[in-house]
Amino acid sequence: MGIRYPVVQGGMVWCSGWRLASAVSNAGGLGLLGAGSMEPELLREHVRKCKMATANPFGVNVSLMSRQVEGLMKVIEEEEVKIVFTSAGTPRAWTGFLKERGVVVVHVVSSSRFAVKCEEAGVDAIVAEGFEAGGHNGREETTTLCLIPAVRCVTSLPLLAAGGIGTGEALLAAQALGADGVQIGTRFALTRESSAHEYFKQLCIGLEEGETKLLLKKLSPTRLVKGAFMTAVEEAEARGASVEELRQLLGYGRARKGIFEGDLVEGELEIGQVASLVRRMQDVEEVMQELMTGYERALMNRERWDASV
Amino acid sequence: MGIRYPVVQGGMVWCSGWRLASAVSNAGGLGLLGAGSMEPELLREHVRKCKMATANPFGVNVSLMSRQVEGLMKVIEEEEVKIVFTSAGTPRAWTGFLKERGVVVVHVVSSSRFAVKCEEAGVDAIVAEGFEAGGHNGREETTTLCLIPAVRCVTSLPLLAAGGIGTGEALLAAQALGADGVQIGTRFALTRESSAHEYFKQLCIGLEEGETKLLLKKLSPTRLVKGAFMTAVEEAEARGASVEELRQLLGYGRARKGIFEGDLVEGELEIGQVASLVRRMQDVEEVMQELMTGYERALMNRERWDASV
Repeated sequence: MGIRYPVVQGGMVWCSGWRLASAVSNAGGLGLLGAGSMEPELLREHVRKCKMATANPFGVNVSLMSRQVEGLMKVIEEEEVKIVFTSAGTPRAWTGFLKERGVVVVHVVSSSRFAVKCEEAGVDAIVAEGFEAGGHNGREETTTLCLIPAVRCVTSLPLLAAGGIGTGEALLAAQALGADGVQIGTRFALTRESSAHEYFKQLCIGLEEGETKLLLKKLSPTRLVKGAFMTAVEEAEARGASVEELRQLLGYGRARKGIFEGDLVEGELEIGQVASLVRRMQDVEEVMQELMTGYERALMNRERWDASV
Repeated sequence: MGIRYPVVQGGMVWCSGWRLASAVSNAGGLGLLGAGSMEPELLREHVRKCKMATANPFGVNVSLMSRQVEGLMKVIEEEEVKIVFTSAGTPRAWTGFLKERGVVVVHVVSSSRFAVKCEEAGVDAIVAEGFEAGGHNGREETTTLCLIPAVRCVTSLPLLAAGGIGTGEALLAAQALGADGVQIGTRFALTRESSAHEYFKQLCIGLEEGETKLLLKKLSPTRLVKGAFMTAVEEAEARGASVEELRQLLGYGRARKGIFEGDLVEGELEIGQVASLVRRMQDVEEVMQELMTGYERALMNRERWDASV
């Protein structure tokens, strides 16, 4: 993909607009615009601004469950976006359309079964995302540690590990497991350049272990952050709430309210488990430098490992 | 601990008797007798047989929730067991007693908060076990990938990673994250030397991703294997079954029935997520060789990593 570091910034609703994506691309990673929370014309604006803000490659993440997917793909074609990450849905749906237009296509999966489908559909690379990831998540609940080797077994395509990756040490661990690089969401969602609300970022930076939970499994499994809404969901699920009740409780537009508007009471808050390792607000350049320093430090320790075996 | 490889075989109910533990110790790892499913006199028998079967160090795992804990500790004292892994409960309870008798004490945790308590209690080392592990599990649901760096931050004690580790590549990944070694349960539970029933082993060797689930969260979170009992638990939980209903459904002695007696219908079946990476029955010696080969192979790839960054 012509990037310096094997680090992709995951496309995230309400977090990854042109500011975050261009900052990551400028810092040597691959930034992604998260189109999941955008109308087509807003995506067009972000693509244009991102092009102005960086000369480096960047991409767009499209959730194939979006009601806007046709409109978003039209904008991607018209604005000549070069790299598209698709998530949810089947890789068969849009890979052909994108490949015909010369786009590099990467699909996000949560199982090796879907990785096989990706290869059949002709994608260029795969992101395998584990249980610890924030937001929407696979039904298998396979963690990144178990998922990466499983996906590596079934495909020789370039493979990015996602879920629970927030440090250079974890990048090295992912490579040990067979990944070529990583996709990082949470750590970048909590940078200055992320468009998430300040209140949301501060809450997430203060999270302890165990303060995110994968809930809403009867609808679509989603990793939520502790707070009023999560408590309401937990209570409803403990008493066996039906799909319909949960759908009503969730309502519409809650993620925007929580993540973008900073309403920590009414909003739906989504972040990955690895938030509990993030302890201060940083800018993207600083995060990228720390990732590489941590990676080098972990590599240096390899002599110690040799000796211990 | 005077072992050749930084690999501990986890003490597991109904799997790890003297045959498995001595085989692991003979192969250069540290074998553990799983006292969680033993009466004190049975533990005594296993300790004695294990001493006969290996000249290398081995240990005993004691669940501090066991109703037999006093009796088991008495046997440990009388039989002069040198290494004890304690799990569940607080490390404060028995660490003093064991240390006074010259025993090396290792406690199993699922959070960095408990790792701090371990250090305060004076344990010699810590096992940090993530969400992907089989059987009883932490309430935080923190995965091994997120847990190891968190525990490494709060303690300088020797640290073993557990949960989701079944290959040499995963051992290297665990070390990259800051662990000194690993504790492996599932992979050893499915060897010839494990005392689990053949039917149970064959079922687990055929598992696909997503076919274990962490359930019984209202009682004590437990990773179960797909089958009649897991379906019954899932149905009960989906309709909001109370603690009391779940306790009745679980009953007593189900794990023995499932794992040891091979009753795949009535039994409670417990195994880790990483079972989906185990594809054939092996003996311990073969597993240990594969672990070390995989580890070396992953280390060799490090040149590629340098180049990619």
